[in-house]
Amino acid sequence: MYLPTSLKRLIEALTRLPAIGPKSAHRLAFHILKTPRQEVEWLSRAIIEAKERVHFCKVCNNITEDEVCRICQDQRRDRSIICVVEEPRDLIAMEKSGGFKGVYHVLLGAIAPLEGVGPDDLKIEGLLRRLDGGGVREVLIATNPNTAGEATSLYLAKLIRPLRIKLTRLARGIPVGGSLEYTDEVTLTKAFEGRREI
Amino acid sequence: MYLPTSLKRLIEALTRLPAIGPKSAHRLAFHILKTPRQEVEWLSRAIIEAKERVHFCKVCNNITEDEVCRICQDQRRDRSIICVVEEPRDLIAMEKSGGFKGVYHVLLGAIAPLEGVGPDDLKIEGLLRRLDGGGVREVLIATNPNTAGEATSLYLAKLIRPLRIKLTRLARGIPVGGSLEYTDEVTLTKAFEGRREI
Repeated sequence: MYLPTSLKRLIEALTRLPAIGPKSAHRLAFHILKTPRQEVEWLSRAIIEAKERVHFCKVCNNITEDEVCRICQDQRRDRSIICVVEEPRDLIAMEKSGGFKGVYHVLLGAIAPLEGVGPDDLKIEGLLRRLDGGGVREVLIATNPNTAGEATSLYLAKLIRPLRIKLTRLARGIPVGGSLEYTDEVTLTKAFEGRREI
Repeated sequence: MYLPTSLKRLIEALTRLPAIGPKSAHRLAFHILKTPRQEVEWLSRAIIEAKERVHFCKVCNNITEDEVCRICQDQRRDRSIICVVEEPRDLIAMEKSGGFKGVYHVLLGAIAPLEGVGPDDLKIEGLLRRLDGGGVREVLIATNPNTAGEATSLYLAKLIRPLRIKLTRLARGIPVGGSLEYTDEVTLTKAFEGRREI
């Protein structure tokens, strides 16, 4: 079926986004054609600007437009407890629950051999450097309750245990096989309160 | 909850797209942050280029990058029968069925008083000009089988009947209350074959 080249290209680009199939991509593309030009420019610019401006905090790998993220800059946060998460969106889920007052370390991934992700692909070195610096008395491992998250948790526990720092993980209030990002806030708070030593 | 400004703006822009709620917008935005820069540029450019390059055929209002669309340019198409559809995506659905060898007229909408869309908002004048030119022996009205489509069909029938041109509509093979765009190709072909005079 004939479609203008630029429209085909747009549909192709949209189909690459997660959870957007060919039908959704078509619908979105036609919506964009009907949208006022100014709004389309706004969307196009928002995409490239977010990509250009947002990078990872040089301390904890959280997303930020500055060198160091807001949480790491915040003097009221308790630097003696570090919560280790897989992705920035997991950090955001934890923050929404409001139960945690420490700081974070974002691994930017989880160990998944079948997908070719090994320990070296994660931001683990920076975490060890932070622990080496002293002053940290607890590391709370809040990886996702699935295979990759559990593998990552075990790997980190083996590395950190010799350092004689208290190791905890979130209580099994989080549903196994689920995803941290979509856990409701109350459950996340409960899971934080019930965290137990590994 | 704190999010970098440019990320917030991106989520806001994505939420305006149809069928994308706040959760999907978040997921898409984080996906974009993790996507290689080149691919993000490609998406951003695809959006603005499709909007810039694609416009409406000056004959039939189909989408095209040229002045006149491929179908109107195609000398093998039967110019004596015009199929009237609401949107370019309806035209594409008809073309996929492969059963129709005539030409099209796209109204770019349907009469829907509750949404403030009246006959003057549709590309009806251009259709009447084409019929005035002579040579057209049949107009097949293929508006959607819902309230707005039926209202548009009735309105057009009233205008065209005095011109003594054969008026047909798609057979009721298309499911009432449904949408032309998502009708399967076989059903569309059957509906075309069984079209009957209004």
